[in-house]
Amino acid sequence: MPKDSIYIIKIGGNIIDDPEALDQFLADFSKIKSNKILVHGGGKLATQLAEKMGVETVMAEGRRITDKPTLDIVTMVYGGLINKNIVAKLQALHTNAIGLTGADAGVVISEKRPVKSIDYGYVGDIKNVNEPTLNTLISIGLVPIFAPLTADKKGQILNTNADTMAQAIAVAMAANFESNLIYCFEKNGVLSDPENNESAIPNINYGLFQSLKAEGAINKGMIPKLDNAFQAVNDGVKNVIICNAKDLKNLDEHITFGTTISN
Amino acid sequence: MPKDSIYIIKIGGNIIDDPEALDQFLADFSKIKSNKILVHGGGKLATQLAEKMGVETVMAEGRRITDKPTLDIVTMVYGGLINKNIVAKLQALHTNAIGLTGADAGVVISEKRPVKSIDYGYVGDIKNVNEPTLNTLISIGLVPIFAPLTADKKGQILNTNADTMAQAIAVAMAANFESNLIYCFEKNGVLSDPENNESAIPNINYGLFQSLKAEGAINKGMIPKLDNAFQAVNDGVKNVIICNAKDLKNLDEHITFGTTISN
Repeated sequence: MPKDSIYIIKIGGNIIDDPEALDQFLADFSKIKSNKILVHGGGKLATQLAEKMGVETVMAEGRRITDKPTLDIVTMVYGGLINKNIVAKLQALHTNAIGLTGADAGVVISEKRPVKSIDYGYVGDIKNVNEPTLNTLISIGLVPIFAPLTADKKGQILNTNADTMAQAIAVAMAANFESNLIYCFEKNGVLSDPENNESAIPNINYGLFQSLKAEGAINKGMIPKLDNAFQAVNDGVKNVIICNAKDLKNLDEHITFGTTISN
Repeated sequence: MPKDSIYIIKIGGNIIDDPEALDQFLADFSKIKSNKILVHGGGKLATQLAEKMGVETVMAEGRRITDKPTLDIVTMVYGGLINKNIVAKLQALHTNAIGLTGADAGVVISEKRPVKSIDYGYVGDIKNVNEPTLNTLISIGLVPIFAPLTADKKGQILNTNADTMAQAIAVAMAANFESNLIYCFEKNGVLSDPENNESAIPNINYGLFQSLKAEGAINKGMIPKLDNAFQAVNDGVKNVIICNAKDLKNLDEHITFGTTISN
């Protein structure tokens, strides 16, 4: 019997920050007929709240360090404000959304990142996705909406990269579904010219990724996303697409859009 | 066939604010063998965050008015910070907790309170508890942990009284369970002398409640809680107890504690 399809859709911070774009995205998301999971990023709200509260944002090598006050802020903003408002909006759109962090029902277990050259603080590296529980939630008609937070087995909430979380969930779901990972953001895909949104590369295989990286032709922020994309492809995810959130409406129509990642 | 028991336990803000008391409570909660649901209050964290952010807390007749900035704060603090930390801690205690607001899976639907003499702002009056969905979550082994937030059918998150939410959930669960509502807080029960924690009244029926109220013998803050308690008793909840959080460990032992409410 062919497996059912599932879409794991990650929505980036720039869409979260734009109320109109977010509403359009949620309307398009609610119309997807297949099984689906949403993973949302954080956006600027956490930084804005930190500023209001006088909590300094500490960065190292372009990455946010999650000290205790920052962890509380992201738990509030990602797990509370953003997640619950998305859930309420999707419910109004007749999508039976349920907001989750990795802590809830123990669905995504992580471990505090070991300190090497940098101490990232309360950041979690994913150890296990509890696929059976996630499967059960989906089988009873629920649509999981993930905030980028996980917990370790000792009761500690940990800040977790949303792209990585979407990838790990997509890989886990591949056990029982034809799993599709869709990274949605404000650009048309992986651009060959960062200044030109019409320059999306239709398909990137691993060889092309390596040469584009060597040439410095890819935006630095895109590299970890592509690393996650190739990880997903290698670990059994059928389709991985990096695309504009606006293209989500084409998902059920099988129209080609964005950048497809393949081995 | 006798119905299974379920405990709907509400934990008040003063316990939430005291890390040691909260940890003890969660340890005791995790040991309850029957089906169970936790509803937590908010505590001082929301007020503290509002102060840090320069958001004024507006009160009317002793009740917090939920304007838009306050709604965002309670969504962050109740739905994010408090809820997710409780869930992570319970998971570490081997309780398969799942954090919920009324918005999640559409389990508690409310309506914005109509403006009469006071405009309470973004406050929700509960219209419906989706008992079948809640039942399904429990039947797959999950322990729902509710933040005192609900949503209307139009996608609006609404601040909701935790005592009322616990009562409405207990009443809904009475359809399929022997439902028990336990209000836990920092005192030993309904006190006849507010200054003496040893003065808990063992049993209050509706007649006694009315005469205590007429005499002014009951702490004013206790009256809405008792109104909720009698509502629960009238609507099919088998046992309603108002007690010290420390007494939760006696629940499975059938030891008498706190104040029992009966018609």
